[in-house]
Amino acid sequence: MRQVPNAEIITIGDELLYGQVVDTNSAFMGQELGKLGIRVRQITSVSDRAAEIVLALDAARERADVVLITGGLGPTKDDLTKHILTEYFRSELVLHEPSLRDVEGIFARFNRPMLQVNRQQAYLPAACTPIRNAVGTAPGMWFEDREVVFVSMPGVPFEMKRMMTDIVLPKLKEHFHTAPIEHLVVQTVGLGESFLAEKIADWEDNLPPNFKLAYLPNLGAVRLRLTATDDGLPDLRGRLEAHLPLLRERLGDYIFAVGEVSLEAAVGQLLVERNLTIGTAESCTGGYLAHKLTSVAGSSRYFLGGILAYHNDIKIKQLGVSTETLATHGAVSEATVCEMAEGARRHLGVDVALATSGIAGPDGGTPEKPVGTICIAYADAHQTISKQFSFDRGRQLNVEYTTTTILNLLRQSLPK
Amino acid sequence: MRQVPNAEIITIGDELLYGQVVDTNSAFMGQELGKLGIRVRQITSVSDRAAEIVLALDAARERADVVLITGGLGPTKDDLTKHILTEYFRSELVLHEPSLRDVEGIFARFNRPMLQVNRQQAYLPAACTPIRNAVGTAPGMWFEDREVVFVSMPGVPFEMKRMMTDIVLPKLKEHFHTAPIEHLVVQTVGLGESFLAEKIADWEDNLPPNFKLAYLPNLGAVRLRLTATDDGLPDLRGRLEAHLPLLRERLGDYIFAVGEVSLEAAVGQLLVERNLTIGTAESCTGGYLAHKLTSVAGSSRYFLGGILAYHNDIKIKQLGVSTETLATHGAVSEATVCEMAEGARRHLGVDVALATSGIAGPDGGTPEKPVGTICIAYADAHQTISKQFSFDRGRQLNVEYTTTTILNLLRQSLPK
Repeated sequence: MRQVPNAEIITIGDELLYGQVVDTNSAFMGQELGKLGIRVRQITSVSDRAAEIVLALDAARERADVVLITGGLGPTKDDLTKHILTEYFRSELVLHEPSLRDVEGIFARFNRPMLQVNRQQAYLPAACTPIRNAVGTAPGMWFEDREVVFVSMPGVPFEMKRMMTDIVLPKLKEHFHTAPIEHLVVQTVGLGESFLAEKIADWEDNLPPNFKLAYLPNLGAVRLRLTATDDGLPDLRGRLEAHLPLLRERLGDYIFAVGEVSLEAAVGQLLVERNLTIGTAESCTGGYLAHKLTSVAGSSRYFLGGILAYHNDIKIKQLGVSTETLATHGAVSEATVCEMAEGARRHLGVDVALATSGIAGPDGGTPEKPVGTICIAYADAHQTISKQFSFDRGRQLNVEYTTTTILNLLRQSLPK
Repeated sequence: MRQVPNAEIITIGDELLYGQVVDTNSAFMGQELGKLGIRVRQITSVSDRAAEIVLALDAARERADVVLITGGLGPTKDDLTKHILTEYFRSELVLHEPSLRDVEGIFARFNRPMLQVNRQQAYLPAACTPIRNAVGTAPGMWFEDREVVFVSMPGVPFEMKRMMTDIVLPKLKEHFHTAPIEHLVVQTVGLGESFLAEKIADWEDNLPPNFKLAYLPNLGAVRLRLTATDDGLPDLRGRLEAHLPLLRERLGDYIFAVGEVSLEAAVGQLLVERNLTIGTAESCTGGYLAHKLTSVAGSSRYFLGGILAYHNDIKIKQLGVSTETLATHGAVSEATVCEMAEGARRHLGVDVALATSGIAGPDGGTPEKPVGTICIAYADAHQTISKQFSFDRGRQLNVEYTTTTILNLLRQSLPK
């Protein structure tokens, strides 16, 4: 059984220490390294000061086989990382033609004049293997120095993620020939973490010692990640998947997918399979539900459109909700969301419609209908289903939770 | 001039290194310490392993005057922090009666039976000053050891925040008699980081040595953060703000706000001031634009609703876009988004309407209109303005960038 390599992550930038930016890069890198079987031993965030960056590099190299560094590669004065690394590895900056062409290409594409500072971004330390930045002007750098790999990437999350996925992770896998590690992700929705844990407690207890289960809850949905590390025996993958049937037996319909599939992608797949179109009538979710549905590539095959009916006049005019229903039951009521969903089917000409209405907060609550009171409805040619529930964790989380809940209602209600 | 105290933050937990949880605690602590004039020098995330926690403590105490620690205070086996600190400070656990009463109180409130493991949470090292946890079962701990302050708090964000605000921050302020530090945040949109930097290069060069500028770019918007540390002279705040007029002169209308204000909140404020209502007609942004507008608390005062016109039939039926325009110019064209915006004004009965249409990708591109071709329009009673641009960084970022761009178009186009 091979040694598990140790990684350390160093994120650079005063904005992280001042708390003006939350470091989400480290979590992404930690997840991806974990999938490769590389253990993250420490994450360190340091300022833009040269001396402190060098100290962090020295400390990390003592403990780690690979050091991933993000930040400080921008074109501005406070971006020092490249210069510090050039000195750290006793190298010098030389023009890297391919990088220059990439930078020029980006400015050409947005037809903007290229500045000297951007041209300078194509100068890289001779000691590094440049890493192409497909979506930005700052190339990454790969160094190998006394048995330790150092990788420097931009701090802009989408640039770093693209670089990791396309180049750094494959290169690390090849460099370390990492021991096999297998992950099985099971997506559940509709049952809270602790209830889920109770249902599968003995299943979890009976897992082999090299199998580890992680609960990754997120507003009504819980991702279960089962990880198997190398035990020297053959067919790790097969033995991992052998645990799936019993898990399915325990959790049944709470499982909506196996693998890295979002709930919105899973329901999209159902709509495609059943050849159904969908539309939305949103009040409290304010477009977030449609945004989720359309965040799936190819969603235009089934999502035709929606009505955002924040104001009652629009519920009446665009969705045909009756003034009487609004007067009797109020905008936040099961009666109203049912009419919204049915109206959306008619006005949008879709097979299936979803409707939301609620008090997202922080204002607008009443004693009978406090902030967090949410009504949702599903309508197709045969039935209209509505639900009312209460959830208050602040405006944004209320909207996200409502969206998860109604997507699950859709999943469970679609004609088989 | 007083010395600025150095702080270090240590967050403990395997879930942080695996990337299963994003460390948001550090950002909060960094912000709050910054307001006190305490500089965060390093943030370190380590695993639940005793040896690695002790190494982090040793390293931090060498550099810092205060070390804030979160995590590992729960009731379960893998929560080691309290025991490690007890040993680290050569102390022993003793029952802390007030903490026991707090824990008992919490279980009484939720009338749940209190378990032995919870009772044990009231045992604290004799060497610490206990810190009350008003909203959870794990008390915090304050240690002073050879000139360094160590504070241990729970990792649960709302427990940590409450403890910081109520007890830790006031205690730190009193302990360090901290020197002032001032931040000025200027929000810009519409100009890239490097162009911005060029426009203010000499302004930046002329800043006093204790003033530091940081660029925080995010898809078409750049936050500028000017930080002034104590130089012993009076009125640091006033001297910081004295640099604002020249910055405004240089950047003019690219500045949309001073302070922590989002672009959607800033345009919302403009709509309120001018007493205008707004609606949306979205194609490629798929509801994200409306989501942004409605993510602002109180947005129902000006946002009435919208039409999500993904399918052309809905552009025609719900927005009155002419079939001829669609046939001649296509759905992704300035002609179409203009009709969408004007149609939204009529059909929704709003003063101002925004419309988007584009090829978000990854599919749907053509030679003439590649993925990333985006058209946006603004319409009010007096004018309709449209723009076409190209931006391709993947579906989600295309949508976000389009949203930033059209919110900026709205900001610049609203009748004065």
